Amino acid sequence: MSKLVIVGTVAFDAIETPFGKTDKILGGAGTFIGLAASNFNVDSAVVSVVGGDFPQEYLDLMSDRNIDVSGIEIVKDGKTFFWSGKYHNDMNSRDTLATELNVLADFEPVVPENYKDAEVVMLGNLHPLTQMSVLNQMANKPKLVILDTMNFWMDCALEDLHNTIKHIDVITINDEEARQLTGEYSLVVAARKIHEMGPKYVVIKKGEHGALLFHDDNVFYAPALPLEEVFDPTGAGDTFAGGFAGYLAKTGDFSFENMKTAVIYGSTLASFCVEKFGTERMLSLTDKEIYNRLDQFKSLTQFDIELS
Amino acid sequence: MSKLVIVGTVAFDAIETPFGKTDKILGGAGTFIGLAASNFNVDSAVVSVVGGDFPQEYLDLMSDRNIDVSGIEIVKDGKTFFWSGKYHNDMNSRDTLATELNVLADFEPVVPENYKDAEVVMLGNLHPLTQMSVLNQMANKPKLVILDTMNFWMDCALEDLHNTIKHIDVITINDEEARQLTGEYSLVVAARKIHEMGPKYVVIKKGEHGALLFHDDNVFYAPALPLEEVFDPTGAGDTFAGGFAGYLAKTGDFSFENMKTAVIYGSTLASFCVEKFGTERMLSLTDKEIYNRLDQFKSLTQFDIELS
Repeated sequence: MSKLVIVGTVAFDAIETPFGKTDKILGGAGTFIGLAASNFNVDSAVVSVVGGDFPQEYLDLMSDRNIDVSGIEIVKDGKTFFWSGKYHNDMNSRDTLATELNVLADFEPVVPENYKDAEVVMLGNLHPLTQMSVLNQMANKPKLVILDTMNFWMDCALEDLHNTIKHIDVITINDEEARQLTGEYSLVVAARKIHEMGPKYVVIKKGEHGALLFHDDNVFYAPALPLEEVFDPTGAGDTFAGGFAGYLAKTGDFSFENMKTAVIYGSTLASFCVEKFGTERMLSLTDKEIYNRLDQFKSLTQFDIELS
Repeated sequence: MSKLVIVGTVAFDAIETPFGKTDKILGGAGTFIGLAASNFNVDSAVVSVVGGDFPQEYLDLMSDRNIDVSGIEIVKDGKTFFWSGKYHNDMNSRDTLATELNVLADFEPVVPENYKDAEVVMLGNLHPLTQMSVLNQMANKPKLVILDTMNFWMDCALEDLHNTIKHIDVITINDEEARQLTGEYSLVVAARKIHEMGPKYVVIKKGEHGALLFHDDNVFYAPALPLEEVFDPTGAGDTFAGGFAGYLAKTGDFSFENMKTAVIYGSTLASFCVEKFGTERMLSLTDKEIYNRLDQFKSLTQFDIELS
């Protein structure tokens, strides 16, 4: 069992989908990653910042799941980061209605002393310099650093992003972002170019079409589970990353073979996340449900061809 | 080993891609399906029509691969169906530059006498009434009827399409067409509605994102092999269908489990088809290459999770 440090936003979201809308509810990359990873009973800490308006019950809810919250700074006279978005009918695209950075604007992550020796670090989507500052605080070089990012940082902090991803092992990125980062349409070629930028492992997320894991000349494809209904995609990518990181931290095996399994766990957890608004489904999730859905993933993808 | 009847166009294509362009070359759904199925050494016949301008060498090329061409009518004073298209840079969309129906306009398929007892029938993309007339000529009810179609027939012959698909076992259709046919965005819901229209098995083709096979509550996902370069997508869908039909005809096992394997064979052959213009790659394909690529498909999708 490895220690896992997670950096990412802990936030309020207000979400509108064709199925309904929410008030301000619990959200943020750090939250979704932490909740997903907590299914593996790992020793994890979330590093983040919230305002004085952030309810203690949300912090308790993480603590109850064995997530260390001592690295979540509370700025008493500040307001918590707030994001609001509206999904279109196809659920694949959305409009951002509001982004209020609030306390996130001056966020300087501080890794708790007793997590500076963590073997696994999950850098949620944040400014690449913020991600780098977490790495710089680690006492030892972590065995595995996973980084998530987005097109926004390619537009406005590309050089910083390039500098940070030199120091990481795994990048998770969606297909359009991989194309933007490399200027290559073919994801096979894009993954190779990203390898050359630093990460030995490249995970390309394709939403409803699943995820690809690249390492040298190896590639693994985990489909997304075909769902009757996607209720709210918010947090699915972070839940995927949290499942991936959590499984790897639990097993301490960072081989390509084990990463395949980690990708399947990530996809499995993400398939639950989208069933309800925000974190709701993740908070009610049981081990038995995860087990049954892993079994569905096996049926979905496993076949028998005798190659003699 | 079952007999396989294939109906579909045998045509000339002229193709332009970002990589180059061709003169009039061999094309057509019947051609691609037949060539793909011929890899399984099945006893197959292609039912189609060509004009007097169609080179004997193309017919010989099919005969050499054990494809019965006696059902390909030659209209001596007519011209062969011609299609011309230009692919965009992403290779996922294309403009049709020319469609000259020629002899196809009056095509009335005639199934050769000694193939009227075929166990497997593959109805390539044609007018639903043309597809139905092939079924009506069969002496016995075939054990398996597979139908491919496209949005064009939904636009202009929807009622005929509905009547024809009542009589088939498997439909192959792409994702956008499945959505158009059912008015449902979710492919899971769309597949269920298509089941209710007749086909017990629904194959939804998603291009570079692979294919889904639905049967009752079962679903199987075959990814497309991630490729460095798609040179020319023409015929990939038909090659998929031909591999699927050919494998099923060879094995005579029409169970869901065996159809999974058939989908993998279809995807494997389609991954070759796109590597060169038109039928070029399919004509040079060896058993060893197919074997090696099936092995790649296994590596791509198979994982090991102990569910105890």
